Formats: sequence, C-alpha cells, structure tokens
Amino acid sequence: MKVHTKKCSLQTEGFCDIRDVTHHVVEAVEESGFERGLATVMVPGATAGVTTIEYEEGVLEDLKKAVERMAPEKIPYAHDRRWGDGNGFSHVRAALIGPSLAVPFGPEGLVLGTWQQIVLLDFDNRPRKRRFLVQVLGEGKRS
Amino acid sequence: MKVHTKKCSLQTEGFCDIRDVTHHVVEAVEESGFERGLATVMVPGATAGVTTIEYEEGVLEDLKKAVERMAPEKIPYAHDRRWGDGNGFSHVRAALIGPSLAVPFGPEGLVLGTWQQIVLLDFDNRPRKRRFLVQVLGEGKRS
Amino acid sequence: MKVHTKKCSLQTEGFCDIRDVTHHVVEAVEESGFERGLATVMVPGATAGVTTIEYEEGVLEDLKKAVERMAPEKIPYAHDRRWGDGNGFSHVRAALIGPSLAVPFGPEGLVLGTWQQIVLLDFDNRPRKRRFLVQVLGEGKRS
Repeated sequence: MKVHTKKCSLQTEGFCDIRDVTHHVVEAVEESGFERGLATVMVPGATAGVTTIEYEEGVLEDLKKAVERMAPEKIPYAHDRRWGDGNGFSHVRAALIGPSLAVPFGPEGLVLGTWQQIVLLDFDNRPRKRRFLVQVLGEGKRS
Repeated sequence: MKVHTKKCSLQTEGFCDIRDVTHHVVEAVEESGFERGLATVMVPGATAGVTTIEYEEGVLEDLKKAVERMAPEKIPYAHDRRWGDGNGFSHVRAALIGPSLAVPFGPEGLVLGTWQQIVLLDFDNRPRKRRFLVQVLGEGKRS
Repeated sequence: MKVHTKKCSLQTEGFCDIRDVTHHVVEAVEESGFERGLATVMVPGATAGVTTIEYEEGVLEDLKKAVERMAPEKIPYAHDRRWGDGNGFSHVRAALIGPSLAVPFGPEGLVLGTWQQIVLLDFDNRPRKRRFLVQVLGEGKRS
C-alpha cells in the first residue's frame, strides 16, 4: 500500500460558507492510481470543518440554521472577551463538526450516495483562502 | 499493508433508528486476516450516520432526544419546501453526526471500550434497506 | 506501508475536561519513522470524545457551554433511571462528538493549523484515568 497526497485550496466567504469539495477528492483518488483504499479530507485551522450533505440550496440553509442553534453567532463568547477576534462562535462550531472525514473507495470510486457530497464548512467570520488536503492510502493498479 | 472490503446491509425503521453494527466490523477485521490496522465504517447516503455508544435502551432514547433538540422533526425545513420529501430534518442530522468512523484494531481486536458499540443511525423518515461498508487497511498474519 | 501503534493514558477530572493530546500524536508519528500517512486517535469507552480546537482557555469554556446546550447535565436521562450511574449526559455527549479522529501527516508533520490542537474530551461524571491510542499507518523513511 502507498500514500498519495493532494494539496487543495479554495476561496470562501466565511460565516458557515459550505463548499462542495467532492471533485477534489475524486481527483486525488484518480491521481493516486489506487484501486481501493481510504481518502481522508482534512482542513487545517480551528475554524472550519468537513462532513457530507446533499448539496442542495434548501438543505444547506437548514444545516446553517442547525449550526446557529448549536453555537449562536450573537451570544457572548469567552474567546472574544480574551482575544477580540469576534470568532468564538466559529471555533466552537468547528470543534463540534470536526476537521476531517475518512471516505473509503473501491473500483467503483468513492463510497458515496447518489445525493451525497463531501463539503468543507468555513465557520470563520471573514472571507478566507482555505487550504485543505486529501490524503489517499491505497493499493492496486499502478501501486 | 493491504485493503479488505466488506459490504454490509441491514433493514432499518428510519426516524433515528439506531443499530448496533459492531459485529459486522469485527467480522470484516477477522476476514481480512490482518493483525493490526484501521477499520473504517462508511454509510453512503445523506440521511444516515455512524458513531459509537453503549447499546443500552435508555441511553439510545437519550441520544434520540438530543438529536431532536439539535434538528427538531417538526420545524420548517427549506429542503422540504423545495423538494417535498419531508426529510429535511434527516439530512441535517446526518450532516451533524457524519457518515463515517475510523476504528483502529490490533492483536486484541477492535479498540473499543467494554460498553461501547459501533452504531449506524438511520435518520430518514421511512424504513430503508441500508447498505454500508467496512474498509479495512492493515498488515500482519496472512497479509 | 506499515502500522505503528502508540498506547497512551492521562488523568482527567471528567465533566467535559478537555485535554490537549497533540504531543502524544506527534510522538507516535515520530516513533513510527514514517514520512507520510494517517494518524488516528481513538479513545475506547463510551463517555469520551476526540476533536480539534484552539487550546485557549476562553474557547474551551465556550465549547463546554455548547456541549451543555446540546446535552444538559441537569435534565432527566433514561440511562440514569435504568442504571443509576448519573452519567447519561456523558454518554450522549460522547456519541455526538465521536470517539476517533484521523489526521494526515507528511514530511512537514501533522496537517494541523498553527492554532489547532488535538483534544480528548472526558465527559464522564468523575475523574478517570483515560487510556487512548494513536494508530499510525504510513510509509517512507525507515518503513
């Protein structure tokens, strides 16, 4: 088995901006040449997260509301009192969602449902250029 | 190191039906013949999730109530206005819990607590036959 | 590719005690001698979880409050009625956060942001000696 690493980036708007990154993961697996294995998407940084969802405008709005219920933007945060960044809510949201997701793949590609996309959520309180990484562990074909 | 894949399925009732799938993961590791490695459970589909819990009726009920607090079934969802599926709450719950879980194993088996089981949560609003997959990466013994 | 396992433990206070375990993961990767791969942190037991956060006192307090909103300590839990452990809230919190986290690494080390640490959260209702494990899958250098 071998490791293939793909470094990626995208521009986000922050404030729970949800971006479909599935094609980056598909490309990473294709570049690897592996027939089967595990692709892990990881976003470094403490104000973003990774999960899956049907990438449909309605449900993205619904997810943003659920995240707002869990860590509202407008309540006081101790982080903001100490550091004045104003993004305490971003940090809490990121910790709850988590920064990485592992997705298996085989000869038929990534194990995802038809209406299931891999998404990066930028919870920060400003636009950012987000770097993230797909680490592919696998075997087969050219490995 | 090598990869072993086990395809699984089970019948669920939906509405946050929580099923113990630990034995599927144990079987996948045994079938692999690997002595140590990582077993990843992944449920394709945007209305289900994977985590661990003590598989005890009381705490399963408690988890369902917490999930209901995070994404209540009876509030309006933009997904439902657009698509009429009535399962906006299912999508949001699945995105919050996440579709995969990576569990290491060694010569003593899966690294789980005595009272800790791996569970698949079906959040959809109807019974479903759920397919899921265990991808085992590992080495040793017969590998 | 090969597997390296590091067994770790630490003393916690329970009640959402959040501990920085990044150095354990860094050590596990260094011990492995691998140049690139995936490090998975897993806490066996149904009342603890793993995620990442900026390890700063203010935001740790903020995260504890969010966890309290999701699964309050003082509401009734069916688990407690059945078993009398008084830690139903601990079980629910652990299931929501999840027991494992996969973090890729490369020649520059773990893929983490500058202000992002890997943390173990002990949700139980008493001090505990927590065992956890870092499973490193990787290749390169001495492998």
